[in-house]
Amino acid sequence: MTREDRARERERLAQMAIELTARRGAEVTPEILAVEAGLSRARIDALFPQESDLFDATTERWFAPHVAMMEEVLASDLPTIRKFYEFFARRYLHNRKEYRRDPEAFALLCELGARRFERVRSYIDLADHYLCELIAQAQVDGVFEGLEIDQALSLINQMVVAYTQPDVLMMLDERLSEEKLAAIVETMFAGLSGKDRGARGLAGLHAA
Amino acid sequence: MTREDRARERERLAQMAIELTARRGAEVTPEILAVEAGLSRARIDALFPQESDLFDATTERWFAPHVAMMEEVLASDLPTIRKFYEFFARRYLHNRKEYRRDPEAFALLCELGARRFERVRSYIDLADHYLCELIAQAQVDGVFEGLEIDQALSLINQMVVAYTQPDVLMMLDERLSEEKLAAIVETMFAGLSGKDRGARGLAGLHAA
Repeated sequence: MTREDRARERERLAQMAIELTARRGAEVTPEILAVEAGLSRARIDALFPQESDLFDATTERWFAPHVAMMEEVLASDLPTIRKFYEFFARRYLHNRKEYRRDPEAFALLCELGARRFERVRSYIDLADHYLCELIAQAQVDGVFEGLEIDQALSLINQMVVAYTQPDVLMMLDERLSEEKLAAIVETMFAGLSGKDRGARGLAGLHAA
Repeated sequence: MTREDRARERERLAQMAIELTARRGAEVTPEILAVEAGLSRARIDALFPQESDLFDATTERWFAPHVAMMEEVLASDLPTIRKFYEFFARRYLHNRKEYRRDPEAFALLCELGARRFERVRSYIDLADHYLCELIAQAQVDGVFEGLEIDQALSLINQMVVAYTQPDVLMMLDERLSEEKLAAIVETMFAGLSGKDRGARGLAGLHAA
C-alpha cells in the first residue's frame, strides 16, 4: 500500500465511521468498524495504530469542508466586510444543513466532539487564526479601531456564537438566518471599537 | 393558614427543593420533599395540588431575582445605554455567581429547566417584553434606526446570547467579562441599524 492509498483508505473508513455513528447512535469502536467494513481487526489497527487515531481521522473528515470554506474565503478578493460574512455564513449554512438532515446524529457527533474537546481544539484554533487575519485586514481599512487583534477576536466570536457553536445553533435554529448574521457583521463593522462609550458608566455608580 | 402563610410556605419549600436538587443531583419529587421537610405527604399535596406545581414554584423562586433585577433597571433613571448594559450584566453576574458556587448543581437545574421548557417560557417572554421597552426607549434617541422592534430584539438577543443563555455561559465562562459585555452593548448602540451595508453583497455573486 502506498502512502496515498493508506491516506485514502483512512479517509474512507473515517467517513464510514461518521455514518455508522449517526446510524447506531453511539460512538463507533475499531471492532465495530472492522465488522461493518468487512475488514480484519488487524487491518483497522494497522491503519489507526493509536487509540485516538480513529477519532482524529473522523474529526479531520468532519472539519475538512470547514477548513476548505475558510481558506476559500481568505483567498478570495471580496471586500473585507463580505469576507467576514462569508467566513461565518458558509460554515453556518453547512452546519445547519447537516443538523436539519439528521438532528439526532448531529447532536451526537457534537457531543462526542465536546467529550474529547482537546482533539477538536486545533480546528477552533485554526478558525481563530484565520479570523485574526481577517481582523488585521479590516484594521488596515480603519475598522475595529483601538482594539488589539485578540480583543477584537474574542468580541467578534462572542457576537456570532449563535452561528458558530453547534450547540447554540441547535438551540436557536429557526431564529437564525443569513439576513440576521449579515446584520450582526454590519453592526460590528459600524460599531465595534476600543472607545469607551458609556455603557458601564462611572465606577461605583449603580454597581451591578 | 392564611393565603399569605400558604404563599410563604410554598416559597420556603420551593427554596428547599432547589437546595435538595443541588445536593442530591436529581429532581426532587413531592415524596422526597415531604421526608426532607419533615412534613406529611398530604401537606405537600395540599400546597402543590397539581403535578407541575412544585416545579413551577421552584422556577418562580429561581427567576425571582432575575425579575427584580430587570424591573429595577427599567424603573431607574439611567441613560438608555446604561440601562441596556445593566439589564444584561446584573443577570449575567448573578448566573455566573450561581454557576461558580456549584457548577454541577447549576448545570442540573438548567437541564431540568430545558426539559420542561414550556414552564420556563414565560420568564423568557417577560425578559423579551422588558427588552422591547428598552429598545423603544433607545429608538426615541435615534438608536437602532430602520429596524422594527422585533427585529432589533432578535438581533440583540443573538449578540448577547453568551451572557444570557446559561448553557453558553457555562461553556465560555472564563472568556466572558463585564468589560466585553459593555463593548458589545456599545457596538450595538453605535452600529445596529436597518441599513444594508454590504455584508451579503449582490445576490448571486459568490453565493454562500
